[in-house]
Amino acid sequence: MADALQWIIPIAGIAAILFALYLARDVLSRDTGTREMVDVAGTIFEGAVAFIRRQYTTIGGLALVGAAAIFLIITVFETKEVADTDIFGIDLGWRTAVAFLVGAACSMASGIIGMYISVKSNVRTAAAARRSLVEAVQVAMRGGAVSGFLVVALSLLGVWGIFAAFGGLGEATVQQAPFLIVGFGFGASFVALFAQLGGGIYTKAADVGADLVGKVEAGIPEDDPRNAGVVADLVGDNVGDCAGRGADLFESTAAENIGAMILGVGVYKIALDLGWPNPSAWIFFPLIIRGFGLLATIISVAFFIRGREDENPMNILNRGYWVTTILSVVALGFVTSQTMQTVGSVGENGIPTWVWFFAAGVVGLATSVAFVYITQFYTAGSFRPVREIAEASKTGPATNIISGTAVGYETTFVTAITIGVALLASHWLGAQSGLGERGGIFGTAVATMGMLMTTAYILAMDTFGPITDNAGGIAEFSRAEAGAREITDRLDAVGNTTKALTKGYAIASASLAAFLLFSAYIDKINLILERQGKAIMEAVDLADVNVFVAALIGAMLVYFFSSLAIRAVGKTAQSIIVEVRRQFREMPGIMDYTQRPDYARVVDITTRAALREMVAPGLVAVATPVAVGLLLGYQAVAGLLMVGTIAGVLLATVLNNGGGAWDNAKKYIESGHLMDDKGNVLGKGSYAHAAAVVGDTVGDPFKDTAGPSLHVLVKLLATITLVLAPLFIR
Amino acid sequence: MADALQWIIPIAGIAAILFALYLARDVLSRDTGTREMVDVAGTIFEGAVAFIRRQYTTIGGLALVGAAAIFLIITVFETKEVADTDIFGIDLGWRTAVAFLVGAACSMASGIIGMYISVKSNVRTAAAARRSLVEAVQVAMRGGAVSGFLVVALSLLGVWGIFAAFGGLGEATVQQAPFLIVGFGFGASFVALFAQLGGGIYTKAADVGADLVGKVEAGIPEDDPRNAGVVADLVGDNVGDCAGRGADLFESTAAENIGAMILGVGVYKIALDLGWPNPSAWIFFPLIIRGFGLLATIISVAFFIRGREDENPMNILNRGYWVTTILSVVALGFVTSQTMQTVGSVGENGIPTWVWFFAAGVVGLATSVAFVYITQFYTAGSFRPVREIAEASKTGPATNIISGTAVGYETTFVTAITIGVALLASHWLGAQSGLGERGGIFGTAVATMGMLMTTAYILAMDTFGPITDNAGGIAEFSRAEAGAREITDRLDAVGNTTKALTKGYAIASASLAAFLLFSAYIDKINLILERQGKAIMEAVDLADVNVFVAALIGAMLVYFFSSLAIRAVGKTAQSIIVEVRRQFREMPGIMDYTQRPDYARVVDITTRAALREMVAPGLVAVATPVAVGLLLGYQAVAGLLMVGTIAGVLLATVLNNGGGAWDNAKKYIESGHLMDDKGNVLGKGSYAHAAAVVGDTVGDPFKDTAGPSLHVLVKLLATITLVLAPLFIR
Repeated sequence: MADALQWIIPIAGIAAILFALYLARDVLSRDTGTREMVDVAGTIFEGAVAFIRRQYTTIGGLALVGAAAIFLIITVFETKEVADTDIFGIDLGWRTAVAFLVGAACSMASGIIGMYISVKSNVRTAAAARRSLVEAVQVAMRGGAVSGFLVVALSLLGVWGIFAAFGGLGEATVQQAPFLIVGFGFGASFVALFAQLGGGIYTKAADVGADLVGKVEAGIPEDDPRNAGVVADLVGDNVGDCAGRGADLFESTAAENIGAMILGVGVYKIALDLGWPNPSAWIFFPLIIRGFGLLATIISVAFFIRGREDENPMNILNRGYWVTTILSVVALGFVTSQTMQTVGSVGENGIPTWVWFFAAGVVGLATSVAFVYITQFYTAGSFRPVREIAEASKTGPATNIISGTAVGYETTFVTAITIGVALLASHWLGAQSGLGERGGIFGTAVATMGMLMTTAYILAMDTFGPITDNAGGIAEFSRAEAGAREITDRLDAVGNTTKALTKGYAIASASLAAFLLFSAYIDKINLILERQGKAIMEAVDLADVNVFVAALIGAMLVYFFSSLAIRAVGKTAQSIIVEVRRQFREMPGIMDYTQRPDYARVVDITTRAALREMVAPGLVAVATPVAVGLLLGYQAVAGLLMVGTIAGVLLATVLNNGGGAWDNAKKYIESGHLMDDKGNVLGKGSYAHAAAVVGDTVGDPFKDTAGPSLHVLVKLLATITLVLAPLFIR
Repeated sequence: MADALQWIIPIAGIAAILFALYLARDVLSRDTGTREMVDVAGTIFEGAVAFIRRQYTTIGGLALVGAAAIFLIITVFETKEVADTDIFGIDLGWRTAVAFLVGAACSMASGIIGMYISVKSNVRTAAAARRSLVEAVQVAMRGGAVSGFLVVALSLLGVWGIFAAFGGLGEATVQQAPFLIVGFGFGASFVALFAQLGGGIYTKAADVGADLVGKVEAGIPEDDPRNAGVVADLVGDNVGDCAGRGADLFESTAAENIGAMILGVGVYKIALDLGWPNPSAWIFFPLIIRGFGLLATIISVAFFIRGREDENPMNILNRGYWVTTILSVVALGFVTSQTMQTVGSVGENGIPTWVWFFAAGVVGLATSVAFVYITQFYTAGSFRPVREIAEASKTGPATNIISGTAVGYETTFVTAITIGVALLASHWLGAQSGLGERGGIFGTAVATMGMLMTTAYILAMDTFGPITDNAGGIAEFSRAEAGAREITDRLDAVGNTTKALTKGYAIASASLAAFLLFSAYIDKINLILERQGKAIMEAVDLADVNVFVAALIGAMLVYFFSSLAIRAVGKTAQSIIVEVRRQFREMPGIMDYTQRPDYARVVDITTRAALREMVAPGLVAVATPVAVGLLLGYQAVAGLLMVGTIAGVLLATVLNNGGGAWDNAKKYIESGHLMDDKGNVLGKGSYAHAAAVVGDTVGDPFKDTAGPSLHVLVKLLATITLVLAPLFIR
């Protein structure tokens, strides 16, 4: 049965791709709206393509250098002397380098697809908004789903394909193969880091720059066509939120699949020892679960994105999410019972092994639901945190910032507790399964897989955000009728929430997966140490001075990296401000609509600045673990990896939620919910609103540049240390 | 010789107290200025005394509860079965509880002394500023030195006294005694946490509240007597920066002495094994070094705080600091050679043991010098970071905040690297000394002691800050002549730098000491495990799920605690703003000086709010390690302690340096250094200045409430886990 289930991997992957093509055809066949809409959409498309082309040229060059370095390092360090399989030296070197390049290419493809479809969907969403709310939701969600399905399918087929091509299931290579495909994950992380950084810097520099010079200085509305920075801002939503996040989530799913498969090898060994049938099926277990998750999402998107015209659009999306989750629970039960029941082993209290792991998987799904609601509490306008920031805005920008910082820091509490409980619970469940100590870690792996079953849906919701944001921008820019703008505004507010949800989800899944990748690293180090006849690493001992110093550096790296990313946004934004001011000054016809601003020039300046600024933080992220490993050794790297992960997860939480809360405190005031002492509404244009705009602007690079880049950093640390592990052993 | 050197401890302690009394007499005998100055100084004194009385009543109550809890826990858990000395159970319980109360009392005394002398010195500094810069520097520095000397002397005599009274040097108790006096350190941390929190909330709430409602809303100058919040602001400088920091530094020195002495016990055992003469002298080694550091500081303060009228006041202070440092190096060489040479043992390459440890001590002194300059680079106006923030202010408050955040995050880089190098270097030097693995950790201990030799001087410089700040406030408030105000302004700017320096120093010494306290904790746990016949803890294994989750919680605690502290400032400030606004509204004569604002009412409101708000973060800090220890066990607590320390050190660095840089970016603009595109000066009152004021206000609770409270938190984690260790073993 388990053997037959393996076929779900290519079937689900291909089904998802076909369904994505169907959705793309459906979206593309829709009405593109007024001539003005088509015009601005065309300009956005050009700007986005120009950015992506230049960005990917740079990243592609860096990836080729990376592949060459990997080839050399592995060829030199993983020699025959330390190998116990027939794959080592130059043979292992080129395979890993190829896997790296395939991962990098898939990651780039994910980014391009995400960007392309979202640019095409946003104008159609704006056009649909002229007729119907539900239709606009459908267009935006289907556009988002195209990228969700393609990204997850690519990751699934990529990992499976490389495994099949290189590893096969021969006795000798089965242990080596997952480590081999780590190159695939590293390639994906490598590209994702730069894509997220470059896109994140671009999008927020354009946003901050355009807002400051337009809304604050010139006093014209957001997305007003007289502001030369507005097109760059609209381009930014596509290249940052869509292309960047697409690459980010692609590498997440890839890294997490690999982590789980490496643990699968551990269970495979247990299965061999115990004489279970089909031991090698365990290695594919994570991919099988992901395949079923993909099928659940297809059903949900195809049949459950429906609703009434007067409904809150968030309810429509939430309904689909719950359908996906419930179908995933059912699928999880089916897969665990089918693969694990056949082996007939039992854990504590005579409860079969599969039940324990099913429960661990449900813990993962529950964690994902918990994060959706936690993020909503901290960033949605109806709850205490956002109201608190809005109240603090009454005494000016300083108290707004202080209050938002306090909220951002506070969000680490429930985040850390939820992750902690999920790890401890799934570890405990796994340890009861009858598989011993390995079972505990495999329990956390199954929880991660459970959590990741809904990835495609979450990714669709995420891409929904920038599509609706852009649809709103296009409606405003093309001066569409008020009814259409009202609908796009409602969708935009929902899009802000879904973007925040995804970040919470990404952080939670990264933390769970990190624990897998730690054990994968320790396994790999110990495999090499054993082959070299040395004592294995029993623990990652924080009381060792090297490990402690490396841990300190890991935690510092997270701040330093964020500092570089945030500063990059500030620098790039200032160059935009200078240029737009120049245009206002030198082209006086702009203000009375008689002169067209030079949008292209701003797009070009932003592109060049963002690409220049992404290099330094990216190289710091790659170089630090390598330097620490070379200087302080393999145990210290483990300390850097683990404490860097903790620090990264928490700082990303602070930045994402703080930024989201500031954004929505502004929206809360704009919707007229804030009153002064005498009961007058402090709405748009009030001093409280001006203060809230400052907070919103500060939050922008936090939540859309540094925060999401930290997700990638955390996983990059894991994949780079896995690939380069042999370097750190002397 | 080593035996005779022990007498330096009481001699230096008593000499420091006598010298402090001499300085206090000298300061008190000076001219108190105009009648207006005396008036406002009297009002400040009343407010400060009222606050301290109420605060210490609350803290005293909490301390009694703490002592009772410690007595019960130790009596129940450290029973005869687990003891190998004649001190256990009820006997050990009451001794530890008494030590806790003595530590708490000394900490309170340090706070009261610091506050009292600073309140008395500031009016005399203002009066001296009417005549001479150098005289004003001398008064402020001598006032600061009174509290510096008394705090260090109290810590020295307190630890020595308790050791002598309880432990003595009998064979059976010598091992137990340092653990016994850990109670002393915990008492000190406990009081310091609440003193720093309460004082920090008070001072910054008053500062932020008074500035917002006065400078920003009403458009009147800082420290203008029409602002009812100004007296509360001046009181705040005394209760936060003086009383709070006094308690903070007292507990630092106490905790670090204890940590070093516990390691001294380790060396004592080696000395016993090797048959060295006078093995027990090693336990006093840290106190002997501190005694010499105290003598070096006396010489420096007595003879080297002199200069020319036209000199930069910072140079005068720096000169004294260098004299202290150089004398300390000489003293360190003398002590190490005298105590260690007699044993005649040698390390690597035939170099005597004492030379290795002397070198480790010099590493510590060098680290302290490095931090003085690092902090200056990041927070002084002449360097890149502050200029960058000032430039960013041109585009408004949002870019000012973004840029300051980036600078704050960036400062973790050089901080972490310096601490890392100091730890690795001193550990390596110690490991070469011929004492084996223990030698490495003892090397880091000697580095910490070296660093702490200059504590009294650093503390004097720190207290110099609020004294000059207050002197400036008094001069402004009493409308003193322009010449005097100019001098107090110059001193105030220097005071800002010295306050920042101290924080850098406090963080660096806390990090080095933390490593000592970790090994002390591990030693204590292993002592108990051995007595119970269990396997000892070989490592603090981050790959263990319990340790990892505890580490995550430790890092989270730092953010959550800061969130509570920052929010407390915001809340308290808002109540001040509401009150001052009410007074402006209901007492229209205030604005034309015909009506006197109700200062006392604002002081009272602030006092009550600050004391209410300090309880929650304090209890969270105490409860979290206990809860984690009870739920996840002793190894997990070690993970919480270590990663919590790393996270705390880095976040405190971010908050302190970010806040200091914002403050000085404002001052940089006020001094007329910033130009617009056309070369016009953007000074006070410009839009860039308004933006910089926002940054300054945001930085206030960061650098003066949350940051310094984190220093205490980090050390409290260490002392509380040491005292309660038996609870965590099941």
